[in-house]
Formats: sequence, structure tokens, C-alpha cells
Amino acid sequence: MAAPRKIDVVLDSVRRLLRIGATANLLNLLQKQHPADVAQLFGELHDRERTAVFNLLVERHGRLAMEAVSEMGPELAASLMAGRSAEEIARLLAEIPSDDAAALIDYLPKELATSVLEMMGQRASADVENLLEYDEQTAGRIMNPHVFALQEDLTAGEAIAALQGLREVEMVFYLYVVDARRHLVGVVSLRRLLLVSPETPLKRIMTTDLISARVDMDQEEVARQVASYNLLAIPVVDQENKLVGIITVDDVIDVIKDEATEDIYRLAGVSSDEHVFTPPVVSLRKRLPWLVINLATAFLASGVVAIFSGTISAWVALAVFMPIVAGMGGNAATQTLTVIVRGIALGELTWSNSRHALVKELLVGVGNGLATGLVAAVVAWLMIGSPSLGVILALAMVMNLFVAGAAGTLIPLGLRALKIDPALASTVIITTFTDCCGFASFLGLAALFLRYAHKAG
Amino acid sequence: MAAPRKIDVVLDSVRRLLRIGATANLLNLLQKQHPADVAQLFGELHDRERTAVFNLLVERHGRLAMEAVSEMGPELAASLMAGRSAEEIARLLAEIPSDDAAALIDYLPKELATSVLEMMGQRASADVENLLEYDEQTAGRIMNPHVFALQEDLTAGEAIAALQGLREVEMVFYLYVVDARRHLVGVVSLRRLLLVSPETPLKRIMTTDLISARVDMDQEEVARQVASYNLLAIPVVDQENKLVGIITVDDVIDVIKDEATEDIYRLAGVSSDEHVFTPPVVSLRKRLPWLVINLATAFLASGVVAIFSGTISAWVALAVFMPIVAGMGGNAATQTLTVIVRGIALGELTWSNSRHALVKELLVGVGNGLATGLVAAVVAWLMIGSPSLGVILALAMVMNLFVAGAAGTLIPLGLRALKIDPALASTVIITTFTDCCGFASFLGLAALFLRYAHKAG
Repeated sequence: MAAPRKIDVVLDSVRRLLRIGATANLLNLLQKQHPADVAQLFGELHDRERTAVFNLLVERHGRLAMEAVSEMGPELAASLMAGRSAEEIARLLAEIPSDDAAALIDYLPKELATSVLEMMGQRASADVENLLEYDEQTAGRIMNPHVFALQEDLTAGEAIAALQGLREVEMVFYLYVVDARRHLVGVVSLRRLLLVSPETPLKRIMTTDLISARVDMDQEEVARQVASYNLLAIPVVDQENKLVGIITVDDVIDVIKDEATEDIYRLAGVSSDEHVFTPPVVSLRKRLPWLVINLATAFLASGVVAIFSGTISAWVALAVFMPIVAGMGGNAATQTLTVIVRGIALGELTWSNSRHALVKELLVGVGNGLATGLVAAVVAWLMIGSPSLGVILALAMVMNLFVAGAAGTLIPLGLRALKIDPALASTVIITTFTDCCGFASFLGLAALFLRYAHKAG
Repeated sequence: MAAPRKIDVVLDSVRRLLRIGATANLLNLLQKQHPADVAQLFGELHDRERTAVFNLLVERHGRLAMEAVSEMGPELAASLMAGRSAEEIARLLAEIPSDDAAALIDYLPKELATSVLEMMGQRASADVENLLEYDEQTAGRIMNPHVFALQEDLTAGEAIAALQGLREVEMVFYLYVVDARRHLVGVVSLRRLLLVSPETPLKRIMTTDLISARVDMDQEEVARQVASYNLLAIPVVDQENKLVGIITVDDVIDVIKDEATEDIYRLAGVSSDEHVFTPPVVSLRKRLPWLVINLATAFLASGVVAIFSGTISAWVALAVFMPIVAGMGGNAATQTLTVIVRGIALGELTWSNSRHALVKELLVGVGNGLATGLVAAVVAWLMIGSPSLGVILALAMVMNLFVAGAAGTLIPLGLRALKIDPALASTVIITTFTDCCGFASFLGLAALFLRYAHKAG
């Protein structure tokens, strides 16, 4: 490995200071870290150390403790909170933005969550409850309801004064302009504000052609808009175009990461909320359903082999080469599936061009089938000394890679048409599909050959 | 499907206007689109339409044409340029930022690229050549060298005046402060500048504790810093801490997406520069090496089966259940591999906690092996009427899922220790590994049983 990461050095010191009980030094060290780094430290400490350090921090430097909580995943954050009283949790949550608080409360046990909401101040709890009313993975759920907006009849000078009076609104880069009933009517950039004379009315310098997200917009679509228009933030409006919140680019980055993880996981049949350190029992329970589905489909493939057990008895070498046909089909299908699913996710693959994609994948399948089939045929011939088996193997591979291209394209596209996430056409399912076709084509061709050879003989 | 996307409506109109030759209307329609949307339109048009629309746009609205080029992938951008003369390309590239120009030139045929660099104005070509000198996927390669910086002895008022004099520096949100020899010494936010009196020196209001990236930092690490510290931009410095460029959050979003695509692709044995519409011949050539590797390893699995062909002759039902053991192992390994590779990519899995992860995956493997093995044993017993075969199947599955957990964890961790991308431990390789172990354990146990049963009988 390369030089140790800075975080590893800090981690070692934290552990050492904790062991010898040097709490003053430990606090001093933690205070020098960025809250995001403190959050990462919590992720890497063992359970007991984590609790000890968090308790210390809550007691002596509550603000840093909660800033770190804001930066960690809601699952870990909730686990740090879980042992505390509802009253204490409510008090601690008052320190962090309401969107982070909402995400965390969502992970608490239901009863505890209810008591925490009751304990929180009226305004804070109303904020959190409002956010929790929106569906998961929508703009409403991830937005920050505290958005800075100005009335359209103010001047640039008044706007600057208003900005200077602000206590703490993180990352103001766009000033949203609203009418008297809080409908979003325009946007002014901070830089533009600097360039005009103070008496210019906002109305004259604002851009009215602005991009916003509706509260019910899917977070993936929000991320796509922010990314493709290079925005730093996107305003969120309700059904009547009233400004209700803001989503900043740092939250969008989290969404993009989460959605990529979700795609990677689904393709492999892993539930999207699993992490490296999800407890074994939970992981086991989450992965088992996929494996059971696979087991059922694997028995399907077994059934195909069972039909031909007479053929295998007559020619045992078939059992030796069976896995090759199936394995190659599975891998080719995984390649196609991955390119198609990612193409859909990135918005490159649409209805209008999907026929083009299918034709391409079929051509690639047949081409790769011919190339690898030929090699396999020669190797099998040299291994077993039977050219006929080689020809059967090559033909079966061409057929199976054709099927792999078709299934890898059509299954995710079909799922999308049914409004199901295309990544759910996971390798688990598609591999068994190519297993069945592979066994059927290879053993079927062999059975035909044996019958013909028998007749000819 | 849901309501048609806005882009599909525009796409239809573009095609219609192009067909009937209504170029004035077509230009009018395109001018109303955001450059990012024009770029997406180019991605969805067929080759011939794309060339026609791009030629029209270059001729009549060169600026929009090149703004769209900036927003598209360098591969597509280079393909639009490839037919033109070096002189024309050089002239067009002068319209876009030098980091985008460098990325595009990198995709042009070598000779053409050299002529284009010669034709470009001296300053522009020096910028591009400088960028191309940095390694791919480093901060230096993706930065924008035009970074706005102020001398440390200026006042806030002078800084605002300097800002107002700027023609066009996209997205200024941080003002970087440098000393007389352009060493980066601090940063002032635009908002802070508004809040102090004009005669305050920058030195007094700047933050000196700032995060920067070295030119040779891996782009993935740059993205991780920007994401974890919630930055809008990160300054890039050379070995002597001199300010040489800036990377903005919109470029970081592209990096995050590209790196996620790379991981997803590598896990499936797809080359990271493949797209849905890479021409079939190119895709075929890119995927074939992976399939050939798989073929070689598949023959390994065949070899394992061949060792036991005597056993299979004696008990053909083994051939029927072989695929189940191998398939379940492959899928369990894919699940583990995916969680581990993603954990490494997101920085959750480190050296210090990898033992913890291994123990977890082994436990999950054995647990899932027991659960699915039991089901499989009962089904096999009911199908074939042989309880012994059921027991052998269950034992082989437990063994193979244990191996799957070990291989899925240790192979990517081992690759990382060798400084190879862990995602290269693709499903292609790991599945064949579990195939071999699955066949060996299942057929080996069966062979032992037959020998024992023979002796006993």
C-alpha cells in the first residue's frame, strides 16, 4: 500500500488516547478535524470505541458531535442515537438541518421516533414532519426547507442588506425571487448583484427562465437536471409553483452515489441498503431471497439437463463441456445487461434508439459466439479427439451468445416498460436464463446428432 | 411509459424540420434549447441526422454548436470533428474551455491532433498541451487552468472591483488568494466579501486553512474530497503549492459518474469506455478478451468435471444437479464481491476493518449455504428419491458458499494490496473460481460416497 492515509494516522491516535484515557487530548485532536473527517472516524471505529468517543463528544462538544452526525449516513447516525432518551435526542437534533434530522428519525424505532417528534420544538418538529410526509427518494424528502428568497419589488441594495442580515444560511449562491404569494418568479446570481448599482430593482436583473424541481420529482431526475445544467442548487416548488425548499449540489452528489450503488447492487442481487458492515444476520436475511429465487431458477436449468440424462449416459463427455456453454452465455449476458442498464440510467438509451441497441447486441453476441466457439471447438477436439463434439459445442455457443444478447437487452427494456427498475433484471435471473438455453441447445444438438449418427450407423 | 419527455418532443420536431428542410425553423428551435439539451439531442440522433444538424449549427451558430460540444462526451465530440480540416477544428476549439478542448483532442487520430495543436493560437495550444502532459485521470488533466486569483495585499473593495472587471470566468464562488509568487495562501468566499467594509485587507478576512488538490492527485480522490467537504470547487496546486487551476463541482459530478460506470462495467467484464452505441465491431473487440479469459477458466472447470467422468458415468443424476452447486456459488460470490468492491470505492472498507468484513462474509456464506442447501436437498430427494444425493448436495453447497464468501472478499482486497483496481476481480473470474470449487466439492463428495457405499455393500 501507499503512504498511510491521514485518516489512518488520526484513527490510531484516537484509539491510543482513548485507551490511556487522555480525554482532554482526545477532544483537542477531534476539534482540529473537519466534521466530515470525524464522521469517517466514527465509521471506522469499533462499536465500543465509537460509543465511548461519541458520548465524550456529546457531553463536551455537542455541536461538533452533531455536525459529524450530519455528515454520516442516517443508518450509522441513528445507531449512535438509539440508546438515548427521546428528550436528549430531540435536543441534539435541534443542532442539525431539518433534512438531515428527518433522514435520521426515519431510521429510529417507530415509538422512539414519535416521542422524539413530540419533544422537539414546535417549529422544528413541523419542519421534520413535513419532510417525512413526502415519498422517499423524491425532491420533497431531500430538500432543505430553509431557502432564502427575496420579494420581487426589492432593489439590489436592499437584497445585499438582507443578505448581510442573515445569520446562517449555508451556501447561498442563487437568490430566488418570489412574488407576494411566494410563487417562484426568478433568480439572481450573487455575482450579478455585485455588478449593478444598488437602486436597480431585482425584477430588472433577475432571470425568469429558471429550472426548478417539483416536490414529487424523483431524486434521480433532480440529480440529472442539476448535473446536466451544471447547477449549484435547484429550487423546489409545490404544485402551485410556490417555493418550498432548495436542494444543493452536495446533496445531489449523495444522490448520484446512492443511485450508482443501488444499480451496482441490484445487478448483483444485493439489497440497496446493505453496507460492508451490515450485521451478518441482517445481510444473510437480505441476500437469502435472491439466492432462493436463484435456486428455483437453477432447478429449472437442472430440469433441462434431466430431460437429456439419457443422452449424457450415452456420451459422458457432454457433462464435461456443459458448464462451458452455460458459463460463456452467462458472462456475455452480464456484459450486455450491464451496458444496457447503465445506458438507461445515464439517459443514453431511450425508446427511439432501443432497436438500434438490440441489433448491435445481437451482432456482438453472434460475433463473439463464433470467435469463442471456434476456439472452444478446437480445444475440445484436441482434449477428447471428437470433431463432432467440437462442432456441436461451437454451434451451441453461437446460439447461446445470440440468446444472451437478446435477453440482456430485452429483459431490462421490458422491465422499464413495466415501470420496474431495469437493474432488477439482475445477473441472478439472466444467468439462469442463459443456463437453460445453453444446456438445451448443447444437449439438444448432441441428442439430434446421436440419433442421426445412430441412423447413419 | 409515462408522459413523453420534453427532449423526445424536441427530438421529433428536429427530425421533422430536418426532413422538410426547414433550416430557419430548425435553427430557431435549437437556439431555444440549453446547450446541455442540444448535446443530448446529438446523442440521440442517428449518424446522418447528427452530421447534418451539426454542420448547419457550425455554419450558422458556431457558438451554440461548440457550447453543446463542451457538454457532450469527448468520444462523441471527437467523432463530430473528425471529418473537418485541422484549421477548422482549431478555430472551433478556440470557443470552448481548454480542459474540454484537451479531452476532445485526446480522442482525435494522432496526426490530426498534432496538426490541430499547431494551428491553434499559441496561448490556447500551450494551455491544451500543458493539460495533456498530466497523466489521465489526475487533477491536472481535468482542471481548468483559468482560475481567478487575487494578490494577498488587496482590499475587499479592490477585490470587488477586480471581480466586476472580469469578462467571463464561469462560476466564481471562492476567491483564491495568492502571494507575489502565486503560492496559494488563502480563500475568501464571495459572501464574506459582501459583509465587510471595502477597506478591509483580504489578508484579514481570508481563511488560510484551505483544502487543495495537487496536480498529480487521482481524480477519484479529488471527487472524494469535494464530496466529503461539500465544496463547490477545489483549487489545484503544483509541487511548490503554486496555484495552477481549479476543478469545479460540475466536473466532479462527471468524475463520480464515470468512476461508478467504470466499477459497474469492470465487475461485468466490460471495458470502461464502452457505451450503448459503441459500434458493434468495436464492442466485439473490447468484450472478446474477457470472454476468452472466461473460456480459459471455464476449461479449468471442465477439467475438474473431467476428473470425475467415471463418477458421473456411474451416477448420471450428478450431471443434473452439478449446475445448481456451481450457479449458487457464483451468485453468492457476486453478492459478496459487489458489497466489498463498492465498500472499497466509497472508502468504507479499509485495512484496519477488513478482517471484520471477512468474518462477516464467511458467516453469511455458511448461513446461506445451510438455508439453501437444506431446501435443495429436500427438492433433490423428492425429484430423484435419493436422500444420499440430497445430503451430498447440501454439504457441497455449504462448502461452496463458504468459498464464495472467502473468494469474494479476499480477491478484491488482494488486488487492492497489489494496487490493481479491485473491480477487476470481475464476476467473470470469480464465478469460474466458484464453478471449480463447486464441481470439485459436489463430485468429490459423491465419489467418496460411492467408494464407501461400494465397500459397505
